[in-house]
Amino acid sequence: MGGNRFGTLFSVTTFGESHGPGCGALVDGCPAGISLETEDIARELRRRRPGGQDGGGASTRAEADEPEILSGIFEGKTLGTPIAILIRNRNQCSGDYDELKDLYRPGHADWTWEVKYGIRDHRGGGRSSGRETVGRVAAGAVAKAFLAGPGVLIRAWTSAAAGIRAPGPGEKGFDYEETKKNPLGVPHRGSAEKILDRIEKLKEEGDSAGGVVTCVVTGLPPGLGDPVFDKLDARIAAAMLSIGAVKGVELGSGFAAASWQGSINNDEPIPIQGGQALPFGGLPLGVPFLAFKTNHAGGVLGGISTGAPLEFRVAFKPVPSISKKQRTLDRRDTVQDLVIRGRHDVCIVPRAIPVVEAMTALVLADLVLLNRCVRV
Amino acid sequence: MGGNRFGTLFSVTTFGESHGPGCGALVDGCPAGISLETEDIARELRRRRPGGQDGGGASTRAEADEPEILSGIFEGKTLGTPIAILIRNRNQCSGDYDELKDLYRPGHADWTWEVKYGIRDHRGGGRSSGRETVGRVAAGAVAKAFLAGPGVLIRAWTSAAAGIRAPGPGEKGFDYEETKKNPLGVPHRGSAEKILDRIEKLKEEGDSAGGVVTCVVTGLPPGLGDPVFDKLDARIAAAMLSIGAVKGVELGSGFAAASWQGSINNDEPIPIQGGQALPFGGLPLGVPFLAFKTNHAGGVLGGISTGAPLEFRVAFKPVPSISKKQRTLDRRDTVQDLVIRGRHDVCIVPRAIPVVEAMTALVLADLVLLNRCVRV
Amino acid sequence: MGGNRFGTLFSVTTFGESHGPGCGALVDGCPAGISLETEDIARELRRRRPGGQDGGGASTRAEADEPEILSGIFEGKTLGTPIAILIRNRNQCSGDYDELKDLYRPGHADWTWEVKYGIRDHRGGGRSSGRETVGRVAAGAVAKAFLAGPGVLIRAWTSAAAGIRAPGPGEKGFDYEETKKNPLGVPHRGSAEKILDRIEKLKEEGDSAGGVVTCVVTGLPPGLGDPVFDKLDARIAAAMLSIGAVKGVELGSGFAAASWQGSINNDEPIPIQGGQALPFGGLPLGVPFLAFKTNHAGGVLGGISTGAPLEFRVAFKPVPSISKKQRTLDRRDTVQDLVIRGRHDVCIVPRAIPVVEAMTALVLADLVLLNRCVRV
Amino acid sequence: MGGNRFGTLFSVTTFGESHGPGCGALVDGCPAGISLETEDIARELRRRRPGGQDGGGASTRAEADEPEILSGIFEGKTLGTPIAILIRNRNQCSGDYDELKDLYRPGHADWTWEVKYGIRDHRGGGRSSGRETVGRVAAGAVAKAFLAGPGVLIRAWTSAAAGIRAPGPGEKGFDYEETKKNPLGVPHRGSAEKILDRIEKLKEEGDSAGGVVTCVVTGLPPGLGDPVFDKLDARIAAAMLSIGAVKGVELGSGFAAASWQGSINNDEPIPIQGGQALPFGGLPLGVPFLAFKTNHAGGVLGGISTGAPLEFRVAFKPVPSISKKQRTLDRRDTVQDLVIRGRHDVCIVPRAIPVVEAMTALVLADLVLLNRCVRV
Repeated sequence: MGGNRFGTLFSVTTFGESHGPGCGALVDGCPAGISLETEDIARELRRRRPGGQDGGGASTRAEADEPEILSGIFEGKTLGTPIAILIRNRNQCSGDYDELKDLYRPGHADWTWEVKYGIRDHRGGGRSSGRETVGRVAAGAVAKAFLAGPGVLIRAWTSAAAGIRAPGPGEKGFDYEETKKNPLGVPHRGSAEKILDRIEKLKEEGDSAGGVVTCVVTGLPPGLGDPVFDKLDARIAAAMLSIGAVKGVELGSGFAAASWQGSINNDEPIPIQGGQALPFGGLPLGVPFLAFKTNHAGGVLGGISTGAPLEFRVAFKPVPSISKKQRTLDRRDTVQDLVIRGRHDVCIVPRAIPVVEAMTALVLADLVLLNRCVRV
Repeated sequence: MGGNRFGTLFSVTTFGESHGPGCGALVDGCPAGISLETEDIARELRRRRPGGQDGGGASTRAEADEPEILSGIFEGKTLGTPIAILIRNRNQCSGDYDELKDLYRPGHADWTWEVKYGIRDHRGGGRSSGRETVGRVAAGAVAKAFLAGPGVLIRAWTSAAAGIRAPGPGEKGFDYEETKKNPLGVPHRGSAEKILDRIEKLKEEGDSAGGVVTCVVTGLPPGLGDPVFDKLDARIAAAMLSIGAVKGVELGSGFAAASWQGSINNDEPIPIQGGQALPFGGLPLGVPFLAFKTNHAGGVLGGISTGAPLEFRVAFKPVPSISKKQRTLDRRDTVQDLVIRGRHDVCIVPRAIPVVEAMTALVLADLVLLNRCVRV
Repeated sequence: MGGNRFGTLFSVTTFGESHGPGCGALVDGCPAGISLETEDIARELRRRRPGGQDGGGASTRAEADEPEILSGIFEGKTLGTPIAILIRNRNQCSGDYDELKDLYRPGHADWTWEVKYGIRDHRGGGRSSGRETVGRVAAGAVAKAFLAGPGVLIRAWTSAAAGIRAPGPGEKGFDYEETKKNPLGVPHRGSAEKILDRIEKLKEEGDSAGGVVTCVVTGLPPGLGDPVFDKLDARIAAAMLSIGAVKGVELGSGFAAASWQGSINNDEPIPIQGGQALPFGGLPLGVPFLAFKTNHAGGVLGGISTGAPLEFRVAFKPVPSISKKQRTLDRRDTVQDLVIRGRHDVCIVPRAIPVVEAMTALVLADLVLLNRCVRV
Repeated sequence: MGGNRFGTLFSVTTFGESHGPGCGALVDGCPAGISLETEDIARELRRRRPGGQDGGGASTRAEADEPEILSGIFEGKTLGTPIAILIRNRNQCSGDYDELKDLYRPGHADWTWEVKYGIRDHRGGGRSSGRETVGRVAAGAVAKAFLAGPGVLIRAWTSAAAGIRAPGPGEKGFDYEETKKNPLGVPHRGSAEKILDRIEKLKEEGDSAGGVVTCVVTGLPPGLGDPVFDKLDARIAAAMLSIGAVKGVELGSGFAAASWQGSINNDEPIPIQGGQALPFGGLPLGVPFLAFKTNHAGGVLGGISTGAPLEFRVAFKPVPSISKKQRTLDRRDTVQDLVIRGRHDVCIVPRAIPVVEAMTALVLADLVLLNRCVRV
């Protein structure tokens, strides 16, 4: 295994260290016949660039991130063979990290990595750097191309950051289109401005912020997810917690449900007038198509999608790299003062949006394929 | 796949429907030479029995749950071959479920299951029943036996239920031993009594409750977890969300961290006086052993265990089977009134404690084995 | 892993030691909606019983081998959930093996097993016994039920044994029906009689014999097999070499092809008059359906089925348990004389026929499912 | 899956089409701390180049095959992270293949590929080209570096080609060093010359030849291989049959054993004087170390290595691309005459030697890691 592969049928293995020759992804199991251009991948990669969010608390390392498709595409279509995508690392300032070579940064994986492997690439965190996510985003773009055909739509945004919460769907002021207009990906202009102010202040203090990403998937057919261990929600949870800095995930009513009664939390099923076209094959004879009055389930019952929107929230801890003085240990077990310099995000949350979407797309693409095999 | 297998090296496949001949687990990859008796499994199974928690809001289906080891053990030791464990289903009252045959119960997987597979075993929820967890608990007992040698200790308890929160570790009144004395597994007598009162009231109202299980693992060596997709926290998250009724998971500071600053959330590394024996092999030369002033990380950095206690919380939704009248649909897409009779838990949380522990043990046993392979 | 699981989507894990409580199989990933009765499994199990081949060189341990389906079937149909099948071991004479406890039998896995695991169940070979194949045959019966719908037909027979070769398909005297009439499963009465004579003589001498099983699958659609590592032929090879005593496998022209020219070995494609119905979904637009003048390929090109019969041969070494005196070592590294008593087959080949078929069915069922996922 | 991944722990996914931008491999699960230079990979790649075997029946497409390591290595050591290796395709004459665009070449995967995926890259066979094996050889070089430490030595050679057989180990005239001196990799000069003559003649006739590769592995510790499905021999068989043009594999006495008696085929165990150092960890207490008088088992008993040399033979069919006129079908199902032009090997066997070795190394590296997990 090695731990770098995700998915059963539609699978991805990512590769690359922050300051090595390049990062990328190898997608194996993508069906043949999907239209895919380099630009489909490049577009998603631009969304995770710090340059795309100036003023949004992002680092100033602005890489080109031009993907090269090495295999698996012929005349604009997937061949059914492995799709290898390479993004060269550029603009690395490895020298920035020399002084950190023998220090274990608080909140980072420096020490755990060294304990585990006995060796680490200290330049920019090596493989534990957020840079690794370019491979995820590239592979997610392939998964999105596969899902786009049947009309699955994945939308994530910053729902809270730096301790300030924006309105959610159904609440006054929520506007998804606004997420494309502010550098934070917040669905409400007023909240975005407040968060920007707060981030600016934290920057001055040499501190950092966390936040919450909300993700909603529409157009998903019922039936996705394989009980009892490859449930849709279990896969989503694994996908989200595999992203660096994530400390929690909840679906639908989530942690709030723990203090509710069943009579409140249960979603009442209601018939669908006129039926509905299904994206991935028809429904079996004798099973009616239904909807729900509420969606406390977040689109999942028994680990299987209900056809209602899949909804979940992901908690990100504050960026551990801060310029405020910290105390830590070095390799000789000696206490040292640490002031981290270099290009660092104050708040990683906006850049994590395309990563959350990519991981969601990878989960769904895999479950769509697995679902082709559950019946005669 | 089929979705019923968990783990890479130390793997389990569970089987069985609620009202079929039996349930159980097949553990493949358990190392040879571990002492294991049937009683080790039976003991864990008793912890999830409703009978063990009378008055605690549990259902009255009191099954014997006697495990039979069918293979893999010879003269009290594991052989390194698959360990098959069978628990016969007894005391099934399938007739209780006849009236539900054509109804889709709100909050249950009845409809999603039927949409997915085109067929379902309606008796007691079939495979989507909580009964399936006997296989998990049995397999978890094997994993616990493997982990016991090196001194890993997994402890879970009910930290909140029915909207009432008990004190946590470090808070006044917390007493782990108390979890064994009340039927709810709550670490504080006063809170337990309040929750029992509340549950009694909900029972009268025909309603149900959710809650939160907290799990803490001590004795874990640093180094467990395989970035970037098989991280310790990603595996724990998948394990927890694979349990029925779970809607969220968070590690360490969890969702709270999203509104903190880095300077607060970062755990300061401190040297360990005199070093410490390590459960699974020694540390590499040149890497000091360290500890942390706080544990906001919940024992995981970069997806790898730090050696500090692994700490996480799991949110359970309220039991969807309530005797209060509900509205739902039947197979002919007609709206029906539904009053669920039969034996049902008001609050599943106490019975979920051994399941949370079992899944945690399975995650850790697997990661311990995987960790043997990361270095020359 | 543990090594006891086979298949990706339609997967089986077998369990059980020769003289433990029982043996069996856990099938995960079998699609829902397949008709399956206990008798379908029992019928295949009877084919591997020694009782079914009296006089055919088989051992005299005549077990009932009654399978019990523990899960996964409801009202005669597969549910899409794991199918656990248990066959209790009966009639074990463990005492027979006490004298072998400290000896390493030549040609057996006694020593390698002990070196690997540090422990072994010496009674009847434990898990390395041929008894383990009951689980394979039971699981194969499930796979056969799945494949029967589309009309796939798997037929294996003894094509050579004890140094005597029977005529093959297309050769004079070959008669598949004859394989059901003689205890050896040989497709030619005269050859069967010769082999029986030879086996009788070997029995008197306290010696044993090997042989070759040929397997032909018809009704297979083109397109099965996933290059470059899960090719149809690679999967078949792994399946066959996983059977005890197998020392080689060849497909189509096999080893003979190594000394042929391309102009001889290439099979000329020819058009099919009137087309042909396809078992698993139709052909893509623009691809003609074709056949081949010869079948030196054995039904596989580039690791993908051609639609022509899949044809392969499997070499079995002679049974290592012989009553002739042998020299070996014991646990104290001392040379000992060994005369093996007890019930042993002189020639295992006839009893291996259903095992070869079962493994073939498992390979094909899995590839059929995998093939559902290769295109949009 | 997708079919392009091999191995459980030490795993490789290969990528690339014959005439796309490049081919390569992604190795996941290689332990940290292994010394590896680009030259280690380049050296193995040179062995499969046609240029290295001029006059040996090889094609004249002489590519540079310079590997680039994209990730996983830092300061000359493996990091424990994925190792991505890219070999750019150069010198492709795609135009050579335009006339084959609508034709199905006999003996090739053109038609089966198109039937399966509905699309194919016709340029040079796309992914079904032998070009794909550069990824295998590159990954095999990594596996060899891992195995070299403990002293495992993998040696393959051409033991027969074009109908002419060379002497084997123990036979008069066999000389492994000679395999490096003739372009065919034949361990006997006289045989090599005969084969070259024969190949020259076949070239003139526009025909092609097959052959047999023998592989012997020494220095292998006992205990490798995981019964019952991941046996050493089952893994080797799968690895070999995954190589294009392979039609059979046999271990030790192989097909010959099928006509032997047990008293001949059984290898007699003998004590080892003075014991022997073990490459991967020590033997368990109480288990003596032993050897065998003969090696009919080919180094495997019960699917587990015995410590004796692992020995197997692989049959390659003659190259299907011949310039002799053949008849075939085109996409309109019309019979066409076909004369294949371009650069083609008359006999692929010598170039397959490093591929056989690479696949063997990948199997062994994986089993070595898996073997770390079978005991407490």
